[in-house]
Amino acid sequence: MKFIPVKGTRDFYPEAMRMRNWIADAWRAASLRNGFEEYDSPIFEYLDLFTAKSGDEIASQLFNFTDRGGRNLAIRPEITPSLARMVNAKINALPRPIKWFSIPRLCRAENPQKGRLREFFQWNVDIIGPQDELADAECVLTAVDAMRQLGLTSSDVQVHYSSRELLSEVLESLGITDQGAGEVMAVLDKRNKLPADKFDAMLSDAVGGSDAIAGILRFLDAGSIDASASPEEIAADAGINAGEKALGAIAKLQAFGGYLDAFGIADWCRYDTGIVRGLAYYTGIVYEIMDAGESLRAIAGGGRYDNLLEVLGGPGVAASGFGMGDVVLGILLEEKQLVGDLADRVDLFVVDDSPELFSEVINLVGRLRSIGLAAEFSYKRQNVGKQLKQADRRGARKAIILRNDGAFIKDMASGEQTACVLDELLSDPASVLGR
Amino acid sequence: MKFIPVKGTRDFYPEAMRMRNWIADAWRAASLRNGFEEYDSPIFEYLDLFTAKSGDEIASQLFNFTDRGGRNLAIRPEITPSLARMVNAKINALPRPIKWFSIPRLCRAENPQKGRLREFFQWNVDIIGPQDELADAECVLTAVDAMRQLGLTSSDVQVHYSSRELLSEVLESLGITDQGAGEVMAVLDKRNKLPADKFDAMLSDAVGGSDAIAGILRFLDAGSIDASASPEEIAADAGINAGEKALGAIAKLQAFGGYLDAFGIADWCRYDTGIVRGLAYYTGIVYEIMDAGESLRAIAGGGRYDNLLEVLGGPGVAASGFGMGDVVLGILLEEKQLVGDLADRVDLFVVDDSPELFSEVINLVGRLRSIGLAAEFSYKRQNVGKQLKQADRRGARKAIILRNDGAFIKDMASGEQTACVLDELLSDPASVLGR
Repeated sequence: MKFIPVKGTRDFYPEAMRMRNWIADAWRAASLRNGFEEYDSPIFEYLDLFTAKSGDEIASQLFNFTDRGGRNLAIRPEITPSLARMVNAKINALPRPIKWFSIPRLCRAENPQKGRLREFFQWNVDIIGPQDELADAECVLTAVDAMRQLGLTSSDVQVHYSSRELLSEVLESLGITDQGAGEVMAVLDKRNKLPADKFDAMLSDAVGGSDAIAGILRFLDAGSIDASASPEEIAADAGINAGEKALGAIAKLQAFGGYLDAFGIADWCRYDTGIVRGLAYYTGIVYEIMDAGESLRAIAGGGRYDNLLEVLGGPGVAASGFGMGDVVLGILLEEKQLVGDLADRVDLFVVDDSPELFSEVINLVGRLRSIGLAAEFSYKRQNVGKQLKQADRRGARKAIILRNDGAFIKDMASGEQTACVLDELLSDPASVLGR
Repeated sequence: MKFIPVKGTRDFYPEAMRMRNWIADAWRAASLRNGFEEYDSPIFEYLDLFTAKSGDEIASQLFNFTDRGGRNLAIRPEITPSLARMVNAKINALPRPIKWFSIPRLCRAENPQKGRLREFFQWNVDIIGPQDELADAECVLTAVDAMRQLGLTSSDVQVHYSSRELLSEVLESLGITDQGAGEVMAVLDKRNKLPADKFDAMLSDAVGGSDAIAGILRFLDAGSIDASASPEEIAADAGINAGEKALGAIAKLQAFGGYLDAFGIADWCRYDTGIVRGLAYYTGIVYEIMDAGESLRAIAGGGRYDNLLEVLGGPGVAASGFGMGDVVLGILLEEKQLVGDLADRVDLFVVDDSPELFSEVINLVGRLRSIGLAAEFSYKRQNVGKQLKQADRRGARKAIILRNDGAFIKDMASGEQTACVLDELLSDPASVLGR
């Protein structure tokens, strides 16, 4: 009998687990520093919850099953529907803004590829309540703050943002609405992933009119949203028919840019009309975080989704947030050689000089651990040299050597060895260990 | 449309999440202090892996499903089979002893009851390699260490241990072997959960001979394993037919007791012949951790399982470990009122005296977060008093008030307010915040 893990899932051996924890710890620390509280949902939910949000086509990406009670259930492929369900259930009891984060394990029945697995972890950061670009900007700040903690800089990654609302307005002014708009957006979303000729052909198919194509391309090529220009000037520059909603969307982009600036992260961010986001429920600012070379999949994606709580049976409450997966981020951190030495280190490794002292070894280990120190020992009764070698492999900072003539403490880095009074070590470890 | 979570699963709103994290943090800290490394496995595996270990009857407790590739998969109901699979796959590359822990999310298709849910978290601690009761004792020490960190004492909980090997020998000496032994053990495992008359009737059914019943009851009533007595004396006292394997099992219980003593946790532990453990794969020392009142389900259970790696296609390598769930432990910690104030606190809450200073507020917040401080602000432009009230609700330690005549820092506990030089705060926060 030979057992293997399922394709697209990962075994986290200790080294891989330390890497996963290192990333998750940075996500959690950035979340708390930015004023978010952690939540979590069950790993499986009623299937309906996921199809209500994203339509039946999401069902093909789900691991779904029927339990003994005949319930149609699914492993969560994303946490946003569960977030909306939880918020809706307590909407009147929760003080706003609701600033929540989570680091769920998610599963999708996809074909495993580079950067895309069937099981992964995704940091989710959401602000529910304010219909204000400040919330979009604060989510982006939180993402940048975590990436900064992991050692990435604005030369390594960029937040590409645009306005889904403005794009809708532009398409509408060109006579492209409803389902047609959805199809065109799906093509635009692939612009960075397709060869130019293929993109042109698909866009032409979806649009079906050369005037409209010219208008779309002119909008896509408009490169920036000037903070000091008026919305009317910006619209004119980009060839946008300046209706009230389009001007409003431009003003929101300007406000968003102003907040990024005030938060001190303008150099991490750039306006990019190519950002569309596949999912239908975004309603305003949208963004993706890309590596500078744009050779990897998006590291994160998010935006404003003001209708989702209502779609899932709640009141009309504004919301904005993003998801950042661990897989692409992990690839980037390794490419940039930002993963340092993550090995767990023990404070003390207790060694005996002869086997009859072994019960004293484990007695001391038990006492050291009971006062909060990480202490380790060898299961094999072997000579001091071999035990010290094991201490070294475990990354021990110091070794305690028990001998018939007393106890000694050895600094593993310097090799320096001195006599050690065990009662002192146990009553005031900092004075002996120098911390 | 109204969506609800599936029966037996939990929504972790921030308060519940903090409690879950508090427990998991104690588990993780105790694991690292005791020299264990963290690992994790996928949330789903091939169904075969779980049925190979525990038989087809486990399948009724599984959430299983077939994916689009026709694979028979299941959400993990326990992590030990995955642990054995992972260790087997790298058995020659892993230095021994393999001391690993994990805090997996597990799912079982059970009827939800007090202390038993369909989705829960379980701390798993295992030592693979040493065929030595020292490993059993070190796992117990690690469990005790975590419970100690959570505020429990030996008056609150006790580790009840016995020897599955000794029980097998006793049954065999009474002529009860193989399947009969399995049936009798299943009855004995229920002794603490059944009324006495019902237990007697079931035992009588399973054994079918009054001599054997008397022998079993005499063994069950033997209360202690004296460290200074010989195995032969102990066997005679308990009416055990002193074959070589029975004497060996008694000697192992004595060794185990000696290690508990050397580790300084003898007062947390007691010999209890009533401990059997339901699962078939235990081979030596077994234990359960119970609340002192024994009014709850077991907090943890474990023991030695020397055959499992081999059953799952690997070499014959000894192993020992336990699982501790979050549900019963959580109930006990709440009953004992050991759950303190777990609220996330922010270091600084930045307030403005008038709306035109707001962009300075968010600029300062961005800079404070970038140097690692937890800083928060109000989304609503409202007067200083209301903003300070919000700061208080968020547990802020200090507030920074930006006014047209300068910045001020207010200690939220004492109410004391002084002028604040922002450049000093940003360049040397410890000097200003007094930490």
